[in-house]
Amino acid sequence: MRLSAYFLPLLRENPTEAQIVSHRLMLRAGMVRQSSAGIYSWLPLGFRVLQKVEQIVREEQDAAGALEVLMPTIQPAELWRESGRYEDYGKEMLRITDRHEREMLYGPTNEELITDIFRGAVKSYRDLPRNLYHIQWKFRDEVRPRFGVMRGREFLMKDAYSFDLDAKGAKHSYNKMFVAYLRTFARMGLKAIPMRADTGPIGGDLSHEFIILAETGESAVFCDKAWLQTDVLGTDVDFNGDLEPFFKKWTSLYAATEEMHDPKACPVPEDQLVSARGIEVGHIFNFGTKYSKPMKAVVSGPDGAEIAVEMGSYGIGVSRLVGAIIEACHDDAGIVWPESVAPFKVGLINLRAGDEKCRTAADDFYKKLNAAGVEVLYDDRDESPGVKFSAMDLIGLPYQVVIGPRGLDKGVVEFKSRRDGKREEMSPEAALNRLST
Amino acid sequence: MRLSAYFLPLLRENPTEAQIVSHRLMLRAGMVRQSSAGIYSWLPLGFRVLQKVEQIVREEQDAAGALEVLMPTIQPAELWRESGRYEDYGKEMLRITDRHEREMLYGPTNEELITDIFRGAVKSYRDLPRNLYHIQWKFRDEVRPRFGVMRGREFLMKDAYSFDLDAKGAKHSYNKMFVAYLRTFARMGLKAIPMRADTGPIGGDLSHEFIILAETGESAVFCDKAWLQTDVLGTDVDFNGDLEPFFKKWTSLYAATEEMHDPKACPVPEDQLVSARGIEVGHIFNFGTKYSKPMKAVVSGPDGAEIAVEMGSYGIGVSRLVGAIIEACHDDAGIVWPESVAPFKVGLINLRAGDEKCRTAADDFYKKLNAAGVEVLYDDRDESPGVKFSAMDLIGLPYQVVIGPRGLDKGVVEFKSRRDGKREEMSPEAALNRLST
Repeated sequence: MRLSAYFLPLLRENPTEAQIVSHRLMLRAGMVRQSSAGIYSWLPLGFRVLQKVEQIVREEQDAAGALEVLMPTIQPAELWRESGRYEDYGKEMLRITDRHEREMLYGPTNEELITDIFRGAVKSYRDLPRNLYHIQWKFRDEVRPRFGVMRGREFLMKDAYSFDLDAKGAKHSYNKMFVAYLRTFARMGLKAIPMRADTGPIGGDLSHEFIILAETGESAVFCDKAWLQTDVLGTDVDFNGDLEPFFKKWTSLYAATEEMHDPKACPVPEDQLVSARGIEVGHIFNFGTKYSKPMKAVVSGPDGAEIAVEMGSYGIGVSRLVGAIIEACHDDAGIVWPESVAPFKVGLINLRAGDEKCRTAADDFYKKLNAAGVEVLYDDRDESPGVKFSAMDLIGLPYQVVIGPRGLDKGVVEFKSRRDGKREEMSPEAALNRLST
Repeated sequence: MRLSAYFLPLLRENPTEAQIVSHRLMLRAGMVRQSSAGIYSWLPLGFRVLQKVEQIVREEQDAAGALEVLMPTIQPAELWRESGRYEDYGKEMLRITDRHEREMLYGPTNEELITDIFRGAVKSYRDLPRNLYHIQWKFRDEVRPRFGVMRGREFLMKDAYSFDLDAKGAKHSYNKMFVAYLRTFARMGLKAIPMRADTGPIGGDLSHEFIILAETGESAVFCDKAWLQTDVLGTDVDFNGDLEPFFKKWTSLYAATEEMHDPKACPVPEDQLVSARGIEVGHIFNFGTKYSKPMKAVVSGPDGAEIAVEMGSYGIGVSRLVGAIIEACHDDAGIVWPESVAPFKVGLINLRAGDEKCRTAADDFYKKLNAAGVEVLYDDRDESPGVKFSAMDLIGLPYQVVIGPRGLDKGVVEFKSRRDGKREEMSPEAALNRLST
């Protein structure tokens, strides 16, 4: 993509309304634009990141055997009356009346609607277990929306719902999501730690939050130092096998949010305890028959008797993750994207747009990157080197290739890694090779 | 995907609420389920088709140089007051009041919001032209929603918005979308014909509807027989070059909706005129400064003077297309998917799930298809051959491979093409070869 034909409204100044670093950087990097309180439009650069985050979430849900569906945003109030949550939910629920005076709402979550779909389709224990998920916009009418996409009103969420015949099956479904979540966040370059959590308005008796570590995180967390060495992606997992050993291993290490942490009762010695800041990015629940009983989601068991299915629900804040990743991955100059979610892999800078030799060399390099399938943002604008360098650092692509007249005379380009700032001179061919692998 | 682990609630009977064939077949094939009037959940099979349609739309928008963004579903009423459409829009607009009594609405279209984004970001003629598009759920509160996803209330739409400095540039942007639309529908196996249209509430003076031919289409259309021979995908188009010749060529052939067609004034001789039925799947508009003037979307021109930008908007009904494709592609036994949008490429039927030899052979063939990257739905259920054949015909995958005891004794499987019903016996290797290419 040529920057001269792109839509990237960068801001030079820090916007005063932004209190946290991800909000500031997303506005400055032209990723989002607020349309009203807590509601954002995703501009091209931000949308690319959102898509990549969404795709990683999707791949790991699929790998764990969940089936993708798509439920609508607008739901009928009747369903929520069946579960008893319509009145309970309070003002966070955006209530709507349609032209025929029917009561509707913008879904803040989907337990009721998925239970309705399930009970309309599944009648026999032979069709269990199932896990259905979707990635859809939700709305929660927060009193004071703030922190950009970290606490917006309209937000993109992945929510999965499992259906099992008994508690043992439900625990296996829970374990699948538990493992899939750790893999999902690890693939985004994040260190996510599962912490035992309260179940709140969703209900049930088993629940974990997934909290990623970020220096500028919203809350204090404590965990065993050994967590930082855990290699989730390096662990071979068979989703069809017994996952309880993984669950036990990954919940055996101490980890607690500030509210749950009691220094006096903490089993970990002080020198083994990490005190850090974290951001919640996922939450999983096993709530048994809380919805299936009132909503009559039953199957006939092997002996013909009716059995209310055991359910769980599993959420990931997809749009929130974009902000959370920035909280975990930035420096003074801007964002530092992990490669798996970077909007482009490399930023190509032509130092002198007016110089024909530079332009020819940069155009040529750009074509070769495109031909090799490398995602590249090419700064071909007629701007000063300083403006281009700071723009590229701000938007935080993992690699930068700088083409200028002095280098060209020597037959080299400059190759910079955004994460460590390391610069190397190398031939264009060598740079191309490095980026194509 | 194994059918025994899938979520595919097929219906044997025609649902009484469905008046048109696509609605009937989508319900019977377990593609969607209504959650309230005109609002649907997309079940796994339907969601796969929706995703494929969406991806073709996306690829052709990208190829034409449009940039993808994502605007929210909920918009502030103020923006619509600026354009003057808030009061005009009537009861089709779903109006919402949030907890702070602010007036909001569920976007039925996005001219106002995109204009607001544009004016906040672009100040100079040097940043033109631009075309921004998104694929997002919209809501129109129809009085009588019906015909399934063809006329739902919550629907998925691709809408693009072009911004140009002058009328000539705007026409070029219009031509790009005109060509991209013809390519988009052709890739879905549809014959789409552009027809000059009224601009209605969107405004402007140049507009085309894209109508696909379908025997069971909603309205009568007339066109020059030569249209049926037009090969859009075989025409090499350079989106950076002059597109006016393509526009002229593809609008020179007679085509008109029933309302616009006057048999007495028709320039095409009777034996050259095709009378058919059609479905509107896209609509493009060039409306000049209708929104940019009241909303002050201006850039400074080469001489420093303020110029209101020339705009156009371009819609494709993405969820509607899924129904429209079925209207165009079905027979008495069910859906007949064009390969590019089929949920799976092939349905694999094991005729005797209880027979070990059959199961081993079918499992093996299934593994090989997966390894070759061929999307396959494997009917491994313990059901009668008749049930399996009719289910597979109903969901309409392009190819079927049937593995049964008699064939295995001869070392062959049956290969069936859904479109023409042709059956051939061949070795498993030959079938695999045929499907992998």
